[in-house]
Amino acid sequence: MPTKERGMGIMFNAKEFIENSLGEIKNIVGDSRVISACSGGVDSTVATYLVHKAVGDKLVAVFIDDGLRREGEPEFVVRILKELKIKTRYVDAKEEFFQTFKGKTDAEEKRKAFRDKFYTTLGKVAKEEQIQFITQGTIKADVLETVKGIKSQHNVLEQIGINPQIYGYKILEPLRELFKPEVRMVGREMGLPREISERMPFPGPALSLRILGEVTAEKAAIVRKATQIVEEEAINLGAFQSFAVLHNDKATGIKEGNRLYGNIITVRIVNSQDAVTALAVNIPYELLSKISKRITNEIPTVVRCLYDITDKPPSTIEFE
Amino acid sequence: MPTKERGMGIMFNAKEFIENSLGEIKNIVGDSRVISACSGGVDSTVATYLVHKAVGDKLVAVFIDDGLRREGEPEFVVRILKELKIKTRYVDAKEEFFQTFKGKTDAEEKRKAFRDKFYTTLGKVAKEEQIQFITQGTIKADVLETVKGIKSQHNVLEQIGINPQIYGYKILEPLRELFKPEVRMVGREMGLPREISERMPFPGPALSLRILGEVTAEKAAIVRKATQIVEEEAINLGAFQSFAVLHNDKATGIKEGNRLYGNIITVRIVNSQDAVTALAVNIPYELLSKISKRITNEIPTVVRCLYDITDKPPSTIEFE
Repeated sequence: MPTKERGMGIMFNAKEFIENSLGEIKNIVGDSRVISACSGGVDSTVATYLVHKAVGDKLVAVFIDDGLRREGEPEFVVRILKELKIKTRYVDAKEEFFQTFKGKTDAEEKRKAFRDKFYTTLGKVAKEEQIQFITQGTIKADVLETVKGIKSQHNVLEQIGINPQIYGYKILEPLRELFKPEVRMVGREMGLPREISERMPFPGPALSLRILGEVTAEKAAIVRKATQIVEEEAINLGAFQSFAVLHNDKATGIKEGNRLYGNIITVRIVNSQDAVTALAVNIPYELLSKISKRITNEIPTVVRCLYDITDKPPSTIEFE
Repeated sequence: MPTKERGMGIMFNAKEFIENSLGEIKNIVGDSRVISACSGGVDSTVATYLVHKAVGDKLVAVFIDDGLRREGEPEFVVRILKELKIKTRYVDAKEEFFQTFKGKTDAEEKRKAFRDKFYTTLGKVAKEEQIQFITQGTIKADVLETVKGIKSQHNVLEQIGINPQIYGYKILEPLRELFKPEVRMVGREMGLPREISERMPFPGPALSLRILGEVTAEKAAIVRKATQIVEEEAINLGAFQSFAVLHNDKATGIKEGNRLYGNIITVRIVNSQDAVTALAVNIPYELLSKISKRITNEIPTVVRCLYDITDKPPSTIEFE
């Protein structure tokens, strides 16, 4: 993997990157076995496919269903991985994840709870598969933001005090030096379906970041439905990210003529190159109004819809 | 006062209404003394001025400073009342109000806390002033919404189990049959300054409805500052109401390069005839963006600004 510093301005050669990477990965892995936690996001899928191309069936992709994925996402990701002929394991950990979130309301506490459950679950699979390497889709922005203390990326192991070598594992992070647009270029160059290479970024801790306060299965169902509506309506905007957030706060409203102290949903649509900075998108008010009406009509408990008008900085893209 | 039913469509004659009202109020009050709790809002100020015109110095206007008024509002209201030659008492009850909100987070519980403290405070003044009548600025929409159970208006005494006669007081509600636009017409006809007759509606429980969760002096200062910014920037829109709401939820952001788990402000701007239904206003994105930037720049703890895109119904104008 290239180790020299590159800025966004310097031409990136995806083909060359892939060739070099394949050789290096083969060398490093040798006859060992590898797992890759693949959420279906651009980063983890490109990393998984790259390693698969290098070592074939020595790699097992692991899709952990944490109950916090978008509508239809688990089926979609598993299908794509199978179509790419990648050996894949689907792990149903929904109940365990909701259990671990019980009573946790602080953003960092929730991130930590997710991370711990994620690595415990992955650790079990690693043991069963008797692997020596764990592949992760860490990219440059993750490293930069972790170093800066902006947020703790769940996929930067060292920071969370996990020394993988104690467990006998080594970490393989083939995209660690790349920026997001370069990751997409690598995906395209390897012939990944557009549904993956052009995919909207989706955070590791998934919908848990978009449920303010305690994370429950009921709240996940609400924000999943709202997310589906936002994605359907925003699809033609070509924005960097479009999603919904469920507040813990409630507000008064009127449903079927009666007062309802109900849920609040925020719609967040941003443009960005690399997620390090971002702009809230000025979308036509008619569309905003349509999204608000669909969300309040189609989700019985929601009485109020807000649109996030803050750039990053001073806000972050996600709420937690 | 006219008792026949009138809809919005039937011509309202403000001059005639005032003449009739003055006569009736004089008759009812006789030689008694009256207090009027005047917040400076259109309804309570028009009611106060009408009764003042009828009975002169037998009326004492009471401004209760609950610590939840907008920037500069206590001074402004007291000044206006004095300019109108209305006998006025300013009551500083800030500490008592914040005390009563301690630990209360539910919307109805907060409304009740406000109401109780309001009437206790007013009751003390009533005793000191040895009055027989309390004037209130109740209007048609308050009555309708209370009957429908949409919200409990703090100024409809019967519903809260206060039987004013037990205390020897009678209630004077000269605007009870009027809709908002008619109240403004009455204000103009009586020659009230435009600052009053054209004033934006402001709820009785004031900023307490715009602080989700527990109400504290610190939070009141944040939402007061945000409200000031929204009102300054929205002044030329001529909207029915423009205000800011402080969430109890927090969100991540970045201030001066560091991660901050900070406050969220929602901006709410609506158009309405009578507050019974309302439309969120499609304001230019440049203005929304300017408001967001000012709020996050000028209030250190705020990292995120949202714009409410919901009509009434299904939401209400206020959040609580």
